Amino acid sequence: MRGRPEIWYDDLVTGQRHRSPRALTVEADDIVAFARQFDPQPQHLDPVAAQRGLFGGLVASGWHTAAVTMRLLTETLPLAESVGAGLELAWPTPTRPGDQLALDLTVVSKRLSRTKPDRGLVELAYDTVDQSGQIRQRTRATVVMLLGPGLRLAGESHG
Amino acid sequence: MRGRPEIWYDDLVTGQRHRSPRALTVEADDIVAFARQFDPQPQHLDPVAAQRGLFGGLVASGWHTAAVTMRLLTETLPLAESVGAGLELAWPTPTRPGDQLALDLTVVSKRLSRTKPDRGLVELAYDTVDQSGQIRQRTRATVVMLLGPGLRLAGESHG
Repeated sequence: MRGRPEIWYDDLVTGQRHRSPRALTVEADDIVAFARQFDPQPQHLDPVAAQRGLFGGLVASGWHTAAVTMRLLTETLPLAESVGAGLELAWPTPTRPGDQLALDLTVVSKRLSRTKPDRGLVELAYDTVDQSGQIRQRTRATVVMLLGPGLRLAGESHG
Repeated sequence: MRGRPEIWYDDLVTGQRHRSPRALTVEADDIVAFARQFDPQPQHLDPVAAQRGLFGGLVASGWHTAAVTMRLLTETLPLAESVGAGLELAWPTPTRPGDQLALDLTVVSKRLSRTKPDRGLVELAYDTVDQSGQIRQRTRATVVMLLGPGLRLAGESHG
């Protein structure tokens, strides 16, 4: 998108922390709409059935939390062309209706590619937290990025 | 959901493979709609900008592939009440418009909980594959499950 600020490998500093500029609210309707499309299980669809379930109420699909987390990431660090190389995630607690989710991100490490001089690998750790600091998702992502503008990732490989 | 078949810990057999009963088609409109909401980057939103990008055309957000994969999982193994304890995923190739995604799942291992006699941990590995066998996502998931019907996961813990 024209005018979109872009962050490159060279812009990231190991140890630096970034907080999302805003929180995103997840409403019950959002939870049900996502679940209907992608994760039609009772605990995400039906408040009454969910009441009797493990979580004692309606909860978002973990993949919904993951999708909102991606939205927060694009607002926190609008990365220039980049490719996710590996991901680990966990959902210590489920997202509930009315949650206001924000992102707390740390640049864990960065290193230049051993084989491709125009790019580097960055390891990011980010927590998706609600309004009271409860962690809804922990993510650890390794991302391949170009060093700076004027370069392009060659299309032949995803690593 | 009433009448929904449910799979319990006791139903799963180590080494057993499961294939999704159907494929789900991801169209360009689906890719753009998901991206607009959750991952508004040019390669997911704008076919013209995407043409010049790393993938040479519009591609789905990895999180869209992950969401479709969850849908396929619910159709392949409709797990009774269960909680994801840990996840690793990778996107070796991106989902493209028109892809018909199916799931190939293997039950990697299962073991009883050391502390809670009513439940066990199951490790699942599943690949999301397109119509020509290209792997769009690899997932490794550890899931906490109840041994069989008549039991309930106690609500106090997610592990």
